[in-house]
Amino acid sequence: MSHNSFGHLFRVTTWGESHGPAIGCTVDGTPPGVQFSEAWIQTFLDKRRPGQSRYTTQRQEPDRVRVLSGVMPGETDGELVSTGTPIALEIENTDQRSKDYSEIARRYRPGHADVTYDVKYGIRDYRGGGRSSARETAMRVAAGAIARLVVPGVKLRGALVAIGDQWIDRTRWDWDEIDRNPFFCPDAETAGRWADQLDRVRKAGSSIGAVVEIVAENVPAGLGAPIYGKLDADIAANLMSINAVKGVEIGEGFAAAALSGEANADEMRPGPDGRPYYLSNHAGGILGGISTGQPIVARFAVKPTSSILTPRQSVDADGNAVDVMTKGRHDPCVGIRAVPVGEAMVACAIADHYLRDRGQVGAQRH
Amino acid sequence: MSHNSFGHLFRVTTWGESHGPAIGCTVDGTPPGVQFSEAWIQTFLDKRRPGQSRYTTQRQEPDRVRVLSGVMPGETDGELVSTGTPIALEIENTDQRSKDYSEIARRYRPGHADVTYDVKYGIRDYRGGGRSSARETAMRVAAGAIARLVVPGVKLRGALVAIGDQWIDRTRWDWDEIDRNPFFCPDAETAGRWADQLDRVRKAGSSIGAVVEIVAENVPAGLGAPIYGKLDADIAANLMSINAVKGVEIGEGFAAAALSGEANADEMRPGPDGRPYYLSNHAGGILGGISTGQPIVARFAVKPTSSILTPRQSVDADGNAVDVMTKGRHDPCVGIRAVPVGEAMVACAIADHYLRDRGQVGAQRH
Amino acid sequence: MSHNSFGHLFRVTTWGESHGPAIGCTVDGTPPGVQFSEAWIQTFLDKRRPGQSRYTTQRQEPDRVRVLSGVMPGETDGELVSTGTPIALEIENTDQRSKDYSEIARRYRPGHADVTYDVKYGIRDYRGGGRSSARETAMRVAAGAIARLVVPGVKLRGALVAIGDQWIDRTRWDWDEIDRNPFFCPDAETAGRWADQLDRVRKAGSSIGAVVEIVAENVPAGLGAPIYGKLDADIAANLMSINAVKGVEIGEGFAAAALSGEANADEMRPGPDGRPYYLSNHAGGILGGISTGQPIVARFAVKPTSSILTPRQSVDADGNAVDVMTKGRHDPCVGIRAVPVGEAMVACAIADHYLRDRGQVGAQRH
Amino acid sequence: MSHNSFGHLFRVTTWGESHGPAIGCTVDGTPPGVQFSEAWIQTFLDKRRPGQSRYTTQRQEPDRVRVLSGVMPGETDGELVSTGTPIALEIENTDQRSKDYSEIARRYRPGHADVTYDVKYGIRDYRGGGRSSARETAMRVAAGAIARLVVPGVKLRGALVAIGDQWIDRTRWDWDEIDRNPFFCPDAETAGRWADQLDRVRKAGSSIGAVVEIVAENVPAGLGAPIYGKLDADIAANLMSINAVKGVEIGEGFAAAALSGEANADEMRPGPDGRPYYLSNHAGGILGGISTGQPIVARFAVKPTSSILTPRQSVDADGNAVDVMTKGRHDPCVGIRAVPVGEAMVACAIADHYLRDRGQVGAQRH
Repeated sequence: MSHNSFGHLFRVTTWGESHGPAIGCTVDGTPPGVQFSEAWIQTFLDKRRPGQSRYTTQRQEPDRVRVLSGVMPGETDGELVSTGTPIALEIENTDQRSKDYSEIARRYRPGHADVTYDVKYGIRDYRGGGRSSARETAMRVAAGAIARLVVPGVKLRGALVAIGDQWIDRTRWDWDEIDRNPFFCPDAETAGRWADQLDRVRKAGSSIGAVVEIVAENVPAGLGAPIYGKLDADIAANLMSINAVKGVEIGEGFAAAALSGEANADEMRPGPDGRPYYLSNHAGGILGGISTGQPIVARFAVKPTSSILTPRQSVDADGNAVDVMTKGRHDPCVGIRAVPVGEAMVACAIADHYLRDRGQVGAQRH
Repeated sequence: MSHNSFGHLFRVTTWGESHGPAIGCTVDGTPPGVQFSEAWIQTFLDKRRPGQSRYTTQRQEPDRVRVLSGVMPGETDGELVSTGTPIALEIENTDQRSKDYSEIARRYRPGHADVTYDVKYGIRDYRGGGRSSARETAMRVAAGAIARLVVPGVKLRGALVAIGDQWIDRTRWDWDEIDRNPFFCPDAETAGRWADQLDRVRKAGSSIGAVVEIVAENVPAGLGAPIYGKLDADIAANLMSINAVKGVEIGEGFAAAALSGEANADEMRPGPDGRPYYLSNHAGGILGGISTGQPIVARFAVKPTSSILTPRQSVDADGNAVDVMTKGRHDPCVGIRAVPVGEAMVACAIADHYLRDRGQVGAQRH
Repeated sequence: MSHNSFGHLFRVTTWGESHGPAIGCTVDGTPPGVQFSEAWIQTFLDKRRPGQSRYTTQRQEPDRVRVLSGVMPGETDGELVSTGTPIALEIENTDQRSKDYSEIARRYRPGHADVTYDVKYGIRDYRGGGRSSARETAMRVAAGAIARLVVPGVKLRGALVAIGDQWIDRTRWDWDEIDRNPFFCPDAETAGRWADQLDRVRKAGSSIGAVVEIVAENVPAGLGAPIYGKLDADIAANLMSINAVKGVEIGEGFAAAALSGEANADEMRPGPDGRPYYLSNHAGGILGGISTGQPIVARFAVKPTSSILTPRQSVDADGNAVDVMTKGRHDPCVGIRAVPVGEAMVACAIADHYLRDRGQVGAQRH
Repeated sequence: MSHNSFGHLFRVTTWGESHGPAIGCTVDGTPPGVQFSEAWIQTFLDKRRPGQSRYTTQRQEPDRVRVLSGVMPGETDGELVSTGTPIALEIENTDQRSKDYSEIARRYRPGHADVTYDVKYGIRDYRGGGRSSARETAMRVAAGAIARLVVPGVKLRGALVAIGDQWIDRTRWDWDEIDRNPFFCPDAETAGRWADQLDRVRKAGSSIGAVVEIVAENVPAGLGAPIYGKLDADIAANLMSINAVKGVEIGEGFAAAALSGEANADEMRPGPDGRPYYLSNHAGGILGGISTGQPIVARFAVKPTSSILTPRQSVDADGNAVDVMTKGRHDPCVGIRAVPVGEAMVACAIADHYLRDRGQVGAQRH
């Protein structure tokens, strides 16, 4: 079962609520000998961390990760080496202003999971969204930092490609731009327009959706399996499990529906290394559920957060009609911070399939 | 692991190649006492069956399903009652014209899984696509027929909503139209235009993509789980695992990215039964991974089949440049026959979550 | 979940009742390129087959296995080569004398699962024990025949070491004797005594228990995992899942409780190949859940079958007191036929762990 | 996969090494509304805690458990109520005398997992046994404390029934004695003899094995499943996964091999409540993998710990012949502290099967 776990051989189990003492995860299946450090994980957590620009929530969380198991000290200061046993990661919750949320303890915020949690469990931790808070995604990012190291040479990068109906111009795509604006936008010109757009949204107390694109390069050909162990099915589940995600696509995605078979199929020629060389990548790097060796391209749509300052009609736990207005801090566009989360989820899927094919410890150990 | 299985408590394992002696599946987890018949399963298989109109492949397969285990005879002729043990389903392959495929034994058809199978396994059953043939989806449909009976009252229906870039007009949506045209199209007017369009595609030896929408009504509120056991994540994986699917979305899906938080959140009022009554369903019936009780709405994009009559550049298993042209029978729009498959995959996901919450045998038995 | 499946990367799912049309299984995870034949599987099925001596049930089942998927023809006649896709195996049920069992449709045979099935499911296939019949173990033997080929060089053998309280003399252990008597007994002298003993039991319409020992040689060191993926825990579950098994032990097993730490620990010296050479094997080839490279030794206790000709007190489905007497054919000592089943279950556990470490397709394919 | 997890719907994942900063676990699947407290968990941890008598290791660990997630405060002080989300439990490691172990960093202690870890992973945390330390079992006990509350009315108790070859006299069995001696011995007279025996063992720097018996009362009839989801197979795996366990049996266990079918089958009569009343319990409460409603009786054998003060022949990581002698603190009979661990593992198996049948949240919530 996988209520709070994902992956099979690279298996991540997360726990923790937004306003409990801590959040954490267990990463089970990391091969022995993988070198990393808390600082390495922190690099990716910092990308996801709120409060870094006026376009994300002002909640301040240092999000300092601790590695509690599964490692031995490496040769240099701070370096850790995995031992093959489960790696426990933990982040203390330090900014727990529970009072912000007391008012909504029994009121259901429209578009949030408040009502479905109550229907299902009859009890919920209402403080800051509890378990359904996007805070849980910090642990995905932490686990993903380790996943990146499992497949030698693999390169995971993500970008925001649309905010609202404003899409980037793909002809201007420049990966170097990603770190130069607060949107992970690969197109400097569009980033400027997004800044204006988000200022308007933020001032109006509103929110807006976005589309994220993840590209994984240097993924070995042959990962995945033909039917239900499909690499793209696992990527789809991993991405759809991120808070607020409502759609996932691979390669051409929904646009493939409008293409002819001639236009969509990726032709091949013999490559210099004897392997097939693809003349295009409409498939997004996956054919029949198995990686082709081309870059894997996945996109996902993030809905506008329902935490907005405009009162909305709703009900409370007693069945009364009420109006609900978010007062806490919020993100005008949660899609921005979803970029490192998406990278992590794709990294975990690839690591999992890599280990299925190659095994957890590898032939060299026997 | 789930190479060839899906689901946890309602668990389906399929096997079989396009041109082997048979295909089959095991449905494990059906509660005891579920009444069905081979004729019931056949109803759904017949919808998926090829050769029923000029718009689908002319391969003739009676696709007669047999129930080999997990049942006792019911009270009326042909009726079966599940016993709680695994239900094995099997369909003999009768139309195995292997000669059609001999030419492509070592040639990789662009857009097909030929090349990735060879890279991964070093061996493949090239006859009719072997394991990667859409024929495998017959067993999903058969398993789905049983899944429909697991959740009392649930109603699963699907429709084709776009072929190529021609979308239906949703204001004309009429479920009764679905059975009146060969496209599962809920809009009679659009169905007429699709007929012309597909005739052109078929005569050109080309193919085209499509978008399918699945609607599940009467799903109890509270199914799913908040993080990785999300109902929408499982639906996404199930749909993405169908051959040729490249995108999946729930409710507003990708369109949600362009909405504001005000427009996208579904407001609530107290319903006559004391439960929340939703004023809209942008969420597609799932909030925080848990069903709301509203209809669950999922869509998926099916790429144009790569089996086309135009020669395409490719390589063979020896690394030579070759031209490949499909000679066998093929579907100009595989999206049509994907409708009953999509229904089945959503039905299985819902049945699985229903059993997670309520248990396989239920309190009444103890 | 694993209602009717076992293993993770080498995963077996079985289905079928004693008196249904057929029984079968799906073996998922076999690496590509494994060469075998139906005749190879038949070799092991024939060992388990009833009716071969007067000491086993006279039910006549040819138990002819068919391979329905997952293979391509090999180079020689009858040879098959696995393709990496699921291998479906099936045996038709040909000797279905349902009339033998009509009397016990509503009566619970003491010591059988009749009563627990009815309590759990409220319905059961009472013909020949239905799903709980030992007939299901034929599919385990079939799957095990493939498992033996997954780990290169591994050698799986089993022997009966006790019938009732008559144990073999281990100083006379001779593997060659196994095939020379109808008991898989490695000690010719004891085999003679068992023959007399079982004749008495059979004539009395009674039954008796037994202990089986399985030895796996040439298992690579390093298989297993330290905590819940322990090789010995998986072997224990696999063996305990065989019908009528009530105890499992590894190496010294229960006898270890009476030893001192000095006597029980296996000392080591450097071996000629630089690897540790063990001076004894009290551990039965597993330390901390991981194989040492020594022979893996597992034993399991099989209870006397409850199918006896003496009337026993019981109840029926309506709560009435009744007397129950087995009239059908039965085995005086089901432990005998459990030998090939035990071999198969250990083979499957080892294959599963081998694939976890080395991967399903291996590094050579990428 | 289950490298470091067990259970399906009641799923426990543990992490942590003996001398790392902490150990912990995640308990996923606890139904909402279960009331407990840290003090409740502590009750069971204290039973397992070392240093409580001269018969167990003198390592001092307060083993103070913290609940980090998955709960809301209850009505009384310290009371917690589960919310249905994962419950994280953690214990800090406070007594980390790493210097004790430095000498054996590269020497393999015979009978320990040192050598197999190195063969498998090529790296290991040698401090205090690292991951293979019995310290890990504290988290099983903690998880088991919650499992006990999942099945209403179930009562889990364990006892030591043999130390070395000295068995208790079952006619003197008195559960009240369990808490009156440091051995969990239900027979006061035998407890006295064990005290003498263990004093000799301890003074000799030696160790000795033991047999533990677990009894679960008030388990509902009908839990388990017929083939691989067998309740007894899961109990066997759970118990065999405990450190140093080499054998597991249910009911009569190995003794059943010596019985006749007449003697071993449990006869039934109609009970006062209309349900079957069993005249004996040779089956140990499980028939065909499904609980009968009688007490479930399981036993397991614990080998003598290999940590002894007598030098033993071994090798080091460089392949040299060395002598190894344990200098650290150790248990002369690790079987004693295995009693609460065994109780916990059986409790978890029963909780898991209960949820499979009844579901995680139950019908009442929908």
